[in-house]
Amino acid sequence: MQPGACVIGIDIGGTTTSLGIVDRQGGLIAGTTVATQPQQPADVLVSRLCETIEQVRATSPSQTGIAGIGIGAPNANYYRGTVENPPNLNWGATVNLVELCRQRYDLPVAITNDANAAALGELLFGGARGMKHAIVITLGTGLGSGIIVNGGLLYGADGCAGELGHTIVDPAGRECACGKRGCLETYVSATGLCRTVSELLAHRRETSPLRDVSFSHLSSKQVYEAACVDDPIALAAFDTTARILGMKLADAVAHTSPEAIFLSGGLAAAGDLLLAPTRHYLEEFLFTSYKGKVQLHRSELQEGNGAVLGAAALAWNEVDKLSFDSALGTD
Amino acid sequence: MQPGACVIGIDIGGTTTSLGIVDRQGGLIAGTTVATQPQQPADVLVSRLCETIEQVRATSPSQTGIAGIGIGAPNANYYRGTVENPPNLNWGATVNLVELCRQRYDLPVAITNDANAAALGELLFGGARGMKHAIVITLGTGLGSGIIVNGGLLYGADGCAGELGHTIVDPAGRECACGKRGCLETYVSATGLCRTVSELLAHRRETSPLRDVSFSHLSSKQVYEAACVDDPIALAAFDTTARILGMKLADAVAHTSPEAIFLSGGLAAAGDLLLAPTRHYLEEFLFTSYKGKVQLHRSELQEGNGAVLGAAALAWNEVDKLSFDSALGTD
Repeated sequence: MQPGACVIGIDIGGTTTSLGIVDRQGGLIAGTTVATQPQQPADVLVSRLCETIEQVRATSPSQTGIAGIGIGAPNANYYRGTVENPPNLNWGATVNLVELCRQRYDLPVAITNDANAAALGELLFGGARGMKHAIVITLGTGLGSGIIVNGGLLYGADGCAGELGHTIVDPAGRECACGKRGCLETYVSATGLCRTVSELLAHRRETSPLRDVSFSHLSSKQVYEAACVDDPIALAAFDTTARILGMKLADAVAHTSPEAIFLSGGLAAAGDLLLAPTRHYLEEFLFTSYKGKVQLHRSELQEGNGAVLGAAALAWNEVDKLSFDSALGTD
Repeated sequence: MQPGACVIGIDIGGTTTSLGIVDRQGGLIAGTTVATQPQQPADVLVSRLCETIEQVRATSPSQTGIAGIGIGAPNANYYRGTVENPPNLNWGATVNLVELCRQRYDLPVAITNDANAAALGELLFGGARGMKHAIVITLGTGLGSGIIVNGGLLYGADGCAGELGHTIVDPAGRECACGKRGCLETYVSATGLCRTVSELLAHRRETSPLRDVSFSHLSSKQVYEAACVDDPIALAAFDTTARILGMKLADAVAHTSPEAIFLSGGLAAAGDLLLAPTRHYLEEFLFTSYKGKVQLHRSELQEGNGAVLGAAALAWNEVDKLSFDSALGTD
């Protein structure tokens, strides 16, 4: 790897795919987006991405050397290099995206899911820098998570460790898209917050502008705005969300004992409206040995670039691992 | 380290301390027990242990070389080498047991809690041999756990990872000795099983010999014996225990994605009365990605020697780590 080289970070979404050239310090040298065109096969997207990469490289300030490629994608498996049954992409059962990229670039290429990439981004470029043990939670439509142990991302036996969104809050609770009941993400996520508002509207009697919005039209942004002007239903919804999140984060601490937990994604943008009560409940639910020892922060990665930086962190991680293996003679 | 060397495994309990000379394959060459005498200071116990070790070595078949010492103890911290506020030992706030041993033996010495030692024992000598990711649950008076990730024991940021006994089943649930409510070990443990019987006796109407035993006198052994002759209350208690254990093990899988989970300790001796329904509920509560991929077994370490073998595994682990560090030149 030549000094001063960069990596490519790619974040594949159902509608838009973002990519960026990222340096060793997490600086975004250049970036752009392409339409994912989810009805097209995966190799069409890969071809268009490669063209775009070359265009971006050609126009970037210095002719940048590329050391590796990292990809964040839904339902991605790091061990197999595959995307499997992606819900919003018409790619069939299994696509080996790593292989498709390697046919075009003779470079280290790795793939993982969005939340794992976010965790690596936090570890390499964000608030978890220098930490050995941390957890990153992404709060969007669902709840994703990536777990850092011993200074690296935990993949587990099958490449799928860190699915905290599907730990169980209440086995008789809310129906989850996964087919189970009471999963954490049915309570703690943008949609979970709205479901909690709906429950509170039924349970309590306070007047609230939220009573005039249909379930279908309610957004977490509206709940946030109502909470900012002290709407009691919206405030209670954030408190309920924080209590459940704090309780399940205390469970997570009892598993891997992190130094810190980071919240990222849309709902984390609510800031102290969510973070302050979550800190309070987390501390309340922590087992004695952990009390006062676990920090809770908002992600330090910029909202817009977080996913691309995460994917770039995955690429750097792969580049470093290969250098280490080759130094040890195990390459 | 000379070939054919052994290690010393020591398991410190509130009443009895067991120790053994253990070879590389987990064979117990020689073993004995000493009274812990919990009212005496820790250095008195260490002196008596050292004398006993020398006696055992002198009388063991071959004059065995000792490569290291591993200790399993309640409230032990691996990173600090300490035992901190042990509930049943009059040792004060903090005793550095590793230092006390090193004053007598110029060898690698390490300490961890009993459940972590059990997990290392399973990894080196038991059913988890060759696995990269596994979880070991010890079911005694309480519920302990040790988590294996990437082929090694997970200690976490503060040396205290893997306290699944204090994850929360119900935040409004049973009072736990730790001061919280609804901790897993208040439901799933020898005492948890008896508490469940007490609840079922109140809730249901079936006749049962368990109605004639006071809460204070009821033991998990009695519940087991009643279940063996199809007592409906005892059977329901095992089913409830298995359902809660299965649910929380599914949560644990969503954290670290193990290949297998092993149950050890007194309650695991109930065998399929506990294991069969736990397997069923675990599978029911697992997130889609994990279904059909996680084995649940009883520990392969013999009940009586398990703790000493676990402590010996910790010693071997330390010996191997030091050899690896020294080969890398980082010693």
